[in-house]
Amino acid sequence: MEQRASYPHAISIQTRWNDNDVYGHVNNVEYYSYFDTAINAWLIAEGGLDIEHGQVIGLCAESHCTYLGPVAFPETIEVCLRVGELGRSSVRYELAIFGAGAEEPAATGWFVHVFVDRAQRRSTPVEGALREALQRLVTAGAAG
Amino acid sequence: MEQRASYPHAISIQTRWNDNDVYGHVNNVEYYSYFDTAINAWLIAEGGLDIEHGQVIGLCAESHCTYLGPVAFPETIEVCLRVGELGRSSVRYELAIFGAGAEEPAATGWFVHVFVDRAQRRSTPVEGALREALQRLVTAGAAG
Amino acid sequence: MEQRASYPHAISIQTRWNDNDVYGHVNNVEYYSYFDTAINAWLIAEGGLDIEHGQVIGLCAESHCTYLGPVAFPETIEVCLRVGELGRSSVRYELAIFGAGAEEPAATGWFVHVFVDRAQRRSTPVEGALREALQRLVTAGAAG
Amino acid sequence: MEQRASYPHAISIQTRWNDNDVYGHVNNVEYYSYFDTAINAWLIAEGGLDIEHGQVIGLCAESHCTYLGPVAFPETIEVCLRVGELGRSSVRYELAIFGAGAEEPAATGWFVHVFVDRAQRRSTPVEGALREALQRLVTAGAAG
Repeated sequence: MEQRASYPHAISIQTRWNDNDVYGHVNNVEYYSYFDTAINAWLIAEGGLDIEHGQVIGLCAESHCTYLGPVAFPETIEVCLRVGELGRSSVRYELAIFGAGAEEPAATGWFVHVFVDRAQRRSTPVEGALREALQRLVTAGAAG
Repeated sequence: MEQRASYPHAISIQTRWNDNDVYGHVNNVEYYSYFDTAINAWLIAEGGLDIEHGQVIGLCAESHCTYLGPVAFPETIEVCLRVGELGRSSVRYELAIFGAGAEEPAATGWFVHVFVDRAQRRSTPVEGALREALQRLVTAGAAG
Repeated sequence: MEQRASYPHAISIQTRWNDNDVYGHVNNVEYYSYFDTAINAWLIAEGGLDIEHGQVIGLCAESHCTYLGPVAFPETIEVCLRVGELGRSSVRYELAIFGAGAEEPAATGWFVHVFVDRAQRRSTPVEGALREALQRLVTAGAAG
Repeated sequence: MEQRASYPHAISIQTRWNDNDVYGHVNNVEYYSYFDTAINAWLIAEGGLDIEHGQVIGLCAESHCTYLGPVAFPETIEVCLRVGELGRSSVRYELAIFGAGAEEPAATGWFVHVFVDRAQRRSTPVEGALREALQRLVTAGAAG
């Protein structure tokens, strides 16, 4: 079972009323919005990603989630983030979602970003501050 | 201009990547999800609202928002809440949204809940812990 | 009560699983996404609005919804649209949402767009194809 | 490359204004809402799933999406659905998303439902009308 300690970064997210679906828990779709939020908040704060005007943007090529237990509004969840593989122009993030105070994750997943230039949408190498920010999330044993 | 001090309660909400629309700021729709979240989080935490099994639920009868300026992911916004009018079976909330560190609101709005019994959806008086929780949000000058 | 015939345009929207909230009906927030969708689809198809590159964009200044009855996934709803007031650089849309086969609206509302230039976000007159498209939605008795 | 003809069922979904993110295309998260919608609309219409009161509900255990190209508001997309594997109490759906008029999918993915009883959330066999509806989506070569 994944532990919080296996992830170098975490972000807290307040769940919202309409995250819950008719079955009373956060809808499976919303977990990906938590992933997306954790990843991009890191890239912006630490890697200098400029989502409005930057030349390089990250497009999602693949995503996956395994659901292990429920979370529900109004709890504040924690989304944990690490980099499993950092390639020349792509990165594979690994994530886990923990409910408030929970020791075991409610979900684990992964997400692949391919970095492209904004205008042509052709793959472009990840360099500079962005690469350094991603490198800091690479954990021991993962490919660099 | 509305001030934070005019509202007895506030909740912080982490904006999400997909709150932003193509124009680079939080989409107008999402403001209502912030309203809904602030209101229901209060009712659950303070008023004992049980959204899954309780006999009394609050249905939205009317909502309104005036947009004064942008907010954008990744900022954490603050949603301020007061009760403008507390009737027998309905309540009118007044809300304001502030960007991180902003002195002036990015939006103000209001939202009317009619309380009904879950099964029949007929209006039902607001009583007990729920009424007390709402009463605490009534500000001077507002009808009680 | 508003009738479909009072609106010169309508669009069908398939509701989605996660539009429904824990109370089993479409969440109040989502109605505004239906409004936004009906309006912008019209502006793009009929008015030549270019949301990605155009110089003129429409920002929401105010929105309102009155909820009259429920709609729920999986039904396909109809969103009816007219222009209540067309100013120099702003427009007030009036909308109604009808459930599948319903004669009475589940909700009515309005939405104000202020048109601005994309770069400076200063108000700009509505002209040309965009104005013509909006003019076609102005109904008798409304200000032009 | 997956073809529409490989899927026995398809549903059309009108994209929404706020499906698009700052990069001008439908956000990766929203694809899962299209999956969820296609699946549940089928279960309700064909399998008699009663999402509000039924004893058996489907919970998502795992989901995945591979993004192959963009789709964007205001286009109407098509979501194609088949069953890859139908177990005793679980089902693996396979899905593809096609843009308006496109021959190649913008995304392919899969989604696993585990059926449980609503109250205890313990796995329960898929039987009767629900099983028959799922069986009709099983394609040649897939395990039954």
